[in-house]
Amino acid sequence: MFAERLKSLKPYVPGEQPQDRRYVKLNTNENPYPPSPRIAALLSGYDSGRLRLYPDPECRQLKEALARSRGLKPENVFTGNGSDEVLSFAFYAFFDSPRGPLLFPRHTYSFYPVYANFYNLPFTRIPLDSGLAVCLEDYLDIPSCGVIFPNPNAPTGISLGLREIRDFLDRYPGDRAVIIDEAYIDFGGESAVELLEDYPNLLVIQTFSKGRSLAGLRLGYALGQPPLIQALTQVKDSFNSYPVDALAQALGAAALEDEAYFLSCTRRIQETRNRFSFRLGRAGWRVLPSVSNFVFASRPGISGGEVYARLKEKGYLVRYFNEEGITDFVRITIGRDEDMEALAKLMEELPAPGEAEK
Amino acid sequence: MFAERLKSLKPYVPGEQPQDRRYVKLNTNENPYPPSPRIAALLSGYDSGRLRLYPDPECRQLKEALARSRGLKPENVFTGNGSDEVLSFAFYAFFDSPRGPLLFPRHTYSFYPVYANFYNLPFTRIPLDSGLAVCLEDYLDIPSCGVIFPNPNAPTGISLGLREIRDFLDRYPGDRAVIIDEAYIDFGGESAVELLEDYPNLLVIQTFSKGRSLAGLRLGYALGQPPLIQALTQVKDSFNSYPVDALAQALGAAALEDEAYFLSCTRRIQETRNRFSFRLGRAGWRVLPSVSNFVFASRPGISGGEVYARLKEKGYLVRYFNEEGITDFVRITIGRDEDMEALAKLMEELPAPGEAEK
Repeated sequence: MFAERLKSLKPYVPGEQPQDRRYVKLNTNENPYPPSPRIAALLSGYDSGRLRLYPDPECRQLKEALARSRGLKPENVFTGNGSDEVLSFAFYAFFDSPRGPLLFPRHTYSFYPVYANFYNLPFTRIPLDSGLAVCLEDYLDIPSCGVIFPNPNAPTGISLGLREIRDFLDRYPGDRAVIIDEAYIDFGGESAVELLEDYPNLLVIQTFSKGRSLAGLRLGYALGQPPLIQALTQVKDSFNSYPVDALAQALGAAALEDEAYFLSCTRRIQETRNRFSFRLGRAGWRVLPSVSNFVFASRPGISGGEVYARLKEKGYLVRYFNEEGITDFVRITIGRDEDMEALAKLMEELPAPGEAEK
Repeated sequence: MFAERLKSLKPYVPGEQPQDRRYVKLNTNENPYPPSPRIAALLSGYDSGRLRLYPDPECRQLKEALARSRGLKPENVFTGNGSDEVLSFAFYAFFDSPRGPLLFPRHTYSFYPVYANFYNLPFTRIPLDSGLAVCLEDYLDIPSCGVIFPNPNAPTGISLGLREIRDFLDRYPGDRAVIIDEAYIDFGGESAVELLEDYPNLLVIQTFSKGRSLAGLRLGYALGQPPLIQALTQVKDSFNSYPVDALAQALGAAALEDEAYFLSCTRRIQETRNRFSFRLGRAGWRVLPSVSNFVFASRPGISGGEVYARLKEKGYLVRYFNEEGITDFVRITIGRDEDMEALAKLMEELPAPGEAEK
């Protein structure tokens, strides 16, 4: 009754969505602020009668809005049901085993190996450097069918600069796709969108989930030269003609019109992050330099799992990873200022080295 | 830069969504009536701040509402981003080549061969009988890894009864999945949901797009015994953790609460269909006996393509199919009464046999 391939399929496990009690939820990198007021306005005035019709399968209005906001053309834009779906289509469209495995960082978004498995694609994880940063130099050493990495990387929050990315693209084979997953680009990183015109093999994937506070809406997109966008469209049209519903198309376009709100929210999160990081650092935590809406932090003498458990007791939900090399860390989403103040206070009081066993 | 598999990928082509002028749109089986007023009410009162959070990946509220409405349990329900996505996951989960090809009708939903291609799955199309009905007897003759058919079938609109389906399930190997795609079940057909408890290999797929007037929302679901539902969930979680957005979950549950509205809309469409079919028949058209929200009709002496073109000129959009055996037919969605009256009048005046060349 079941296809053979099910046997080796290991699903992605998203951060927990607790139902038992209220937590300050800092475990899935959600934005603490509501989306632009234009979203509420559009929802309350939306003509629900339009929902009887299929949505535009080509998402024209939304693609035009995205193209305008990025200085691109609609034919440079592909839209999907969350950046997770866009990533899945991209794996299908661009990565193929004959020329070697797919390369991605040893510690990164844990959906990448799941997609690879889903499409039966071999992959190799490239270790991070000693500072837990992605080192693109290392991706040139072995034959590969393509490369994917987030920038900033998750769960570290560390970002690469455009010069380093350009250097890499200049030396990586131009007939193989390089995908930069910019899910967290809205919080201070340098977007590779401006490199698109120079590199026909570059695809940049972004999302409305983080910076635009629309994780609940499921809206992601890819930017690239038209042949890449056409390939994604071909895959989409072989899987589901209408993955982006009519409301999401309209709400996404409305969100893009409110740049001022977007900038004020994302700046505020960056300021909170910087204050929170500084305070943790002063209290003896190691905090990786983040340009995302989360920080990755550790403290000698206490494991990530233990920090997670202690904070959960106190009503704060964060995330830790059972992966060799980063078991000491917790990933903490940047929430509202008052929550981060209270959390910093708690974390300052967690046992210092040597105290853990007392 | 592109995966090899792209070369053989032939996307599905949805019915045209014209941008040039206003048509009476009877080409994609949309419901002519708006969704339940509860949809408008929920939208206007929706707290947009909730969209900052990821949706429930397990769609609990919606699954409970669906289970309640069908006399099932939530563990019998899988939800997805339109029944197209549910179908795609089901192809991945259940159909596998080693035991033979997948079987489906010669003339049917044209996405089936596209999914099969997408997952590199061999398939065999089984001819319809002389009345253009699915004959399940014929699906027992050759080894297969599974069977899928719509009931009512598209584009014919013809339905099978439960006795015939039960007879088939009794004789088809119980270790291979049988999927009944009930996209059009809301317009008078007999649903196979009541067979689910007797057949662990049966999966029934339904949608909110037609009977509930929510094509724009993208909401579909599968009903079956828990092992089938778990397999679909495993596939979903390896492809996209959150395919159903928060609004769609809430709106879908609200739509299910308004059974009276649903029944009045779907009855009205059935009445319009019956009147329209009768009138066409009286004017010399062959109209297949439909229990769906469309009719499939032909008239000697004029091809489906020609009917399509003539009606388009007059502002009515219908669909025809370039498939040997059904090129004489057009598929006409049942719209509002006044539109169908006007269309019937036009179709009565199309040339009778022998007149076509005048």
